Amino acid sequence: MSAQNAQKTIFATPQDAETAFYDALERADLEALMAVWAEDEEIVCIQPGGPRLTGYASVRETWRRIFESGQRLTVVLSQPIVMQGMLVSVHSLCEQVGLRGGEAGQTAPLLATNVYVRGALGWRLLLHHASPAPPESMNQIPKTLH
Amino acid sequence: MSAQNAQKTIFATPQDAETAFYDALERADLEALMAVWAEDEEIVCIQPGGPRLTGYASVRETWRRIFESGQRLTVVLSQPIVMQGMLVSVHSLCEQVGLRGGEAGQTAPLLATNVYVRGALGWRLLLHHASPAPPESMNQIPKTLH
Repeated sequence: MSAQNAQKTIFATPQDAETAFYDALERADLEALMAVWAEDEEIVCIQPGGPRLTGYASVRETWRRIFESGQRLTVVLSQPIVMQGMLVSVHSLCEQVGLRGGEAGQTAPLLATNVYVRGALGWRLLLHHASPAPPESMNQIPKTLH
Repeated sequence: MSAQNAQKTIFATPQDAETAFYDALERADLEALMAVWAEDEEIVCIQPGGPRLTGYASVRETWRRIFESGQRLTVVLSQPIVMQGMLVSVHSLCEQVGLRGGEAGQTAPLLATNVYVRGALGWRLLLHHASPAPPESMNQIPKTLH
């Protein structure tokens, strides 16, 4: 349960950190997920409809509970908007979140804001703010035609 | 309706820009509100439960509609977390949004992420992401006792 156990992966780009974050989320890999977060900053995590969690321990605990529920999530990302600076990178994403093994149409549309900061250990996640979005908003760039 | 009409106020700090943003919101002053936004960036605005709006024109249009509805909003901010760098400042805020003239208890708890960037015209708003929060989450630091 200690931050010291977190894997010291170096993320060379914000995109590397983001890929690792969503990979860990889908694999329900708590250590890998927490390794993406900045440890030295006042991190912020907001789950859809949930309270604002701050600090490494609180953020870790919420993800541990989600993963321990046994449900495995799938996340399809789309329409990224990336505003990258030298030390801070702000990403706006559309997320389609579903349950592994669930029906293809049974996904929840979310909007996420992810803020990454560059430190001694490369890029790390500083803030994750996810919230419910109206279903139709995800169809601005349809992948398939019906 | 043109961005050129926006007031060229210089915001010396991200906090100045934030104060101007919420002041304009409460006054339903579209010009003042849009003057806070960056014009040269791909701005992002997410209203609670709404779609992601990008670009100055779309963002302006949504605020114009909100203000034209005639309802006047009140916003009480609390529990700010500010992560300020040289060129980017990320603010996480709790918002209690109500209607002017409405009952004191009839407010909606929101969580907002605001990202400001520093440019030639001082600090400007690049991203505003607001979403519903559970009511109890606002009571971590009560202002009054009942």
